[in-house]
Amino acid sequence: MQDQEVKLLGTWSSPYVLRIRWALRIKGIEYEYIEEDLRNKSPLLLEYNPVHKKVPVLVHKGRAIAESLVILEYIDETWRDNPLLPRDPYDKAMARFWCKFGEEKLSPPIWRVFVTQGEEQKQAYASAMENLEILEKELEGKRFLSGEAIGLLDIFFGSLAYIIPMYEEIIEMKLVDPSKLPWLSKWMEEFLNSPVVKDTLPQKDKLLPRYLAIRDTFLAKRE
Amino acid sequence: MQDQEVKLLGTWSSPYVLRIRWALRIKGIEYEYIEEDLRNKSPLLLEYNPVHKKVPVLVHKGRAIAESLVILEYIDETWRDNPLLPRDPYDKAMARFWCKFGEEKLSPPIWRVFVTQGEEQKQAYASAMENLEILEKELEGKRFLSGEAIGLLDIFFGSLAYIIPMYEEIIEMKLVDPSKLPWLSKWMEEFLNSPVVKDTLPQKDKLLPRYLAIRDTFLAKRE
Repeated sequence: MQDQEVKLLGTWSSPYVLRIRWALRIKGIEYEYIEEDLRNKSPLLLEYNPVHKKVPVLVHKGRAIAESLVILEYIDETWRDNPLLPRDPYDKAMARFWCKFGEEKLSPPIWRVFVTQGEEQKQAYASAMENLEILEKELEGKRFLSGEAIGLLDIFFGSLAYIIPMYEEIIEMKLVDPSKLPWLSKWMEEFLNSPVVKDTLPQKDKLLPRYLAIRDTFLAKRE
Repeated sequence: MQDQEVKLLGTWSSPYVLRIRWALRIKGIEYEYIEEDLRNKSPLLLEYNPVHKKVPVLVHKGRAIAESLVILEYIDETWRDNPLLPRDPYDKAMARFWCKFGEEKLSPPIWRVFVTQGEEQKQAYASAMENLEILEKELEGKRFLSGEAIGLLDIFFGSLAYIIPMYEEIIEMKLVDPSKLPWLSKWMEEFLNSPVVKDTLPQKDKLLPRYLAIRDTFLAKRE
């Protein structure tokens, strides 16, 4: 049945698209992947995500869903095996709380560290470190953020695990220093090397120039 | 049983706290309301929401939950009668999508219209109108954002329905003009006059000076 098909619209380097790929893989769902060129958006993307015109977009039975966290919850509620979220409402609330924390408190300063320099970068760095330490405390004593297995929280923060080492290499600054954030550092390594994630990551020699160009573009804008 | 009790930590003027009051009322849940003074935060608030130190906080069976949307979903999953979210995963995803839209695209420019002036305000106004028109289209033909009855989406955007008329009065500018946004305008009126909402709203003569002071504080910071 054609309309049973699952499609994913993405771009190869996007950390948000990777979240969906990991979730679909954990669930064992076959899907068609459609690469988008964001400088030349396809009619399909504009039709499926008219509000934001961004990836990822998941299309299931011909109906489109946008926003990575919304897609992750949809996947978990539609295919119930290998749950990504705990079933208990309180535990689920905690997972959602930490996702919101990541989105609002962690991703923005880490992004700013990457695309600024000087005093602005210093301030962003202080804010990133403060919030990474909060996450470190939350992770203490656990193997994964979701407990003993990779779950929604790991997938959600996994986009940072994927992007941080590249940021660190480009700006020559350590964000997740094993001596200061041992749990996070260990988690990042284990997550990135897990069977679910390992061979989904873009090659570094392809990724690095892409992100170098992004940083240069942002720095140029601010001059 | 003491630990079965539901407590809500809030401040009387907060639109986010009102969301939780509306949801608890729809569900018919008795609760103890604890007023917080955010200039002098209580040990209870610091204990229950150490990460953000903000209201609302819901405490159920001695366990605390923060962030209004997270609380709303918890309430809906814990007390199943009078559902706030649709049960179908796709419809649920759509509701979550629009909440995210409200949080990211609508609330920030509306807030900026309120606390700025001149060119900055003009830009914020344009952005607010653009996104209000998107919401208007989404609402077209419906009584409530959630359909025929008040649901999570109405509660979520209800905080804007509550705050916008006051902003409009203070800055002497129309955001939701009935001639331009007829569906939104009608929805706002019906929502604010609904039995669930009506007598929960703070008195205007108490609220207005509070928000006037907020605007003055922000304008002074920018000078």
